[in-house]
Amino acid sequence: MRSKLYGMAKPLILVTNDDGITAPGLRSLVRFMSEIGDVVVVAPDSPQSGMGHAITIDNTLYLKRMHLNETDGAQEEYSCSGTPADCVKLGLQELLKRKPDICVSGINHGSNASINVIYSGTMSAAIEAGIEGVPAIGFSLCDYGWKADFEPAKKFIQTIVKKAIKNGIPEGVVLNVNIPKLSEEAIKGIKVCRQARANWKEKFDKRTSPMGKDYYWLTGEFELLDKGEDTDEWALADGYISLVPTQFDLTAHHSIQQINTWSLNE
Amino acid sequence: MRSKLYGMAKPLILVTNDDGITAPGLRSLVRFMSEIGDVVVVAPDSPQSGMGHAITIDNTLYLKRMHLNETDGAQEEYSCSGTPADCVKLGLQELLKRKPDICVSGINHGSNASINVIYSGTMSAAIEAGIEGVPAIGFSLCDYGWKADFEPAKKFIQTIVKKAIKNGIPEGVVLNVNIPKLSEEAIKGIKVCRQARANWKEKFDKRTSPMGKDYYWLTGEFELLDKGEDTDEWALADGYISLVPTQFDLTAHHSIQQINTWSLNE
Repeated sequence: MRSKLYGMAKPLILVTNDDGITAPGLRSLVRFMSEIGDVVVVAPDSPQSGMGHAITIDNTLYLKRMHLNETDGAQEEYSCSGTPADCVKLGLQELLKRKPDICVSGINHGSNASINVIYSGTMSAAIEAGIEGVPAIGFSLCDYGWKADFEPAKKFIQTIVKKAIKNGIPEGVVLNVNIPKLSEEAIKGIKVCRQARANWKEKFDKRTSPMGKDYYWLTGEFELLDKGEDTDEWALADGYISLVPTQFDLTAHHSIQQINTWSLNE
Repeated sequence: MRSKLYGMAKPLILVTNDDGITAPGLRSLVRFMSEIGDVVVVAPDSPQSGMGHAITIDNTLYLKRMHLNETDGAQEEYSCSGTPADCVKLGLQELLKRKPDICVSGINHGSNASINVIYSGTMSAAIEAGIEGVPAIGFSLCDYGWKADFEPAKKFIQTIVKKAIKNGIPEGVVLNVNIPKLSEEAIKGIKVCRQARANWKEKFDKRTSPMGKDYYWLTGEFELLDKGEDTDEWALADGYISLVPTQFDLTAHHSIQQINTWSLNE
């Protein structure tokens, strides 16, 4: 079968996320992708937010064939007991008959811009695909609500995926796309950005259990440390979708020379 | 109190890891660091390998004051029910009276060179400290055994920590140090490197439970994709300790221009 879009077989699209296979953000992404290609879903059976790039080493992994809302358009769906990175590994290695044309992760309920990329299960799934040589994109909507409206993002997400398939994502790069919580008309467009410098100012909420044992909840406030006008945070605040090319070569190449002046072998 | 080493108050050193507070690699690092400064340990109460940069959002965190082998020289020790990144957050926010001069993580039982940095709980602890503005180093010995010999690494680890405190680690950078499994005499020195391109070729070991349910174990083979002579894998194979300056700005700056040619807004 040949699609009109690409003049070749329909693209094969692996869809995953970190909020779990029933999350509205994933269900939307499946629908958006089924208009572009053949969709296979491998997603966690429970929410995995904040899992970073965790993988399951010391435990068993379960896969379950799922039959969710078939009007969403997925060819096959599987839930997995592991992390987002596990889902991608299992999808690529065990489930898909050929290498997918692209892996998309999300749509996350909440921002993965700036430093959030480090803690993001959504992006870890995309990065895992990238490491395995599959073009990959993580999508996040800046709305934590379970009832968030993903429809305004549809047109932009489809554009980004089509252009990524057509042009190819550079080797060693995955895309981190964040979408502001705005109507389709209010979204000004897509901006290619760099990751803003930021961190979370932690505040631990210390409590005592009914049994008299102290425990903590991790909470925090987001702290933007970057006034640049070329960052993802800037673009989002200005009504743009941010697209940050993200790499998994973590080498700080620019500082190698400086550290060599330490004379470590003297 | 002034130390002869630095002509100022003794450095305050936060020690953590991902193998858990009783791991021999951590106990060795505590001993090595107590010869340099005042040591406070905040480490997971159970092994956390492969946790990547996971943080605990949907669960409570417990801290427990520990009194382990006091001849190791730590001033205070705490075990934590969370991930390595949680340990650093709690240490910096709740336990330490002042910002530490350095945070060291490890010594990991096993390599965190090349792509392993992405999955590494050891490095996620160091990166978390770096994000919070604390100079940080992750140490790993290329020996997965629980009875690994950490003594040959002592001199080199102490040198790296002292030089890092003296010179300061560049902002936005943490150090990923991997040590070959060799005698002290056989170690040729320390090389500043870049992260080698590599991945894991997954192999899932599919089994059936006594209850008839299929499950998987994640296994894999390391695949080096990089012939460069400036990489961490090359240095380790050649008998050197590798030191990779590692950053948490994941932006692939070099590819921004290329992706701008996609004309995403047309």
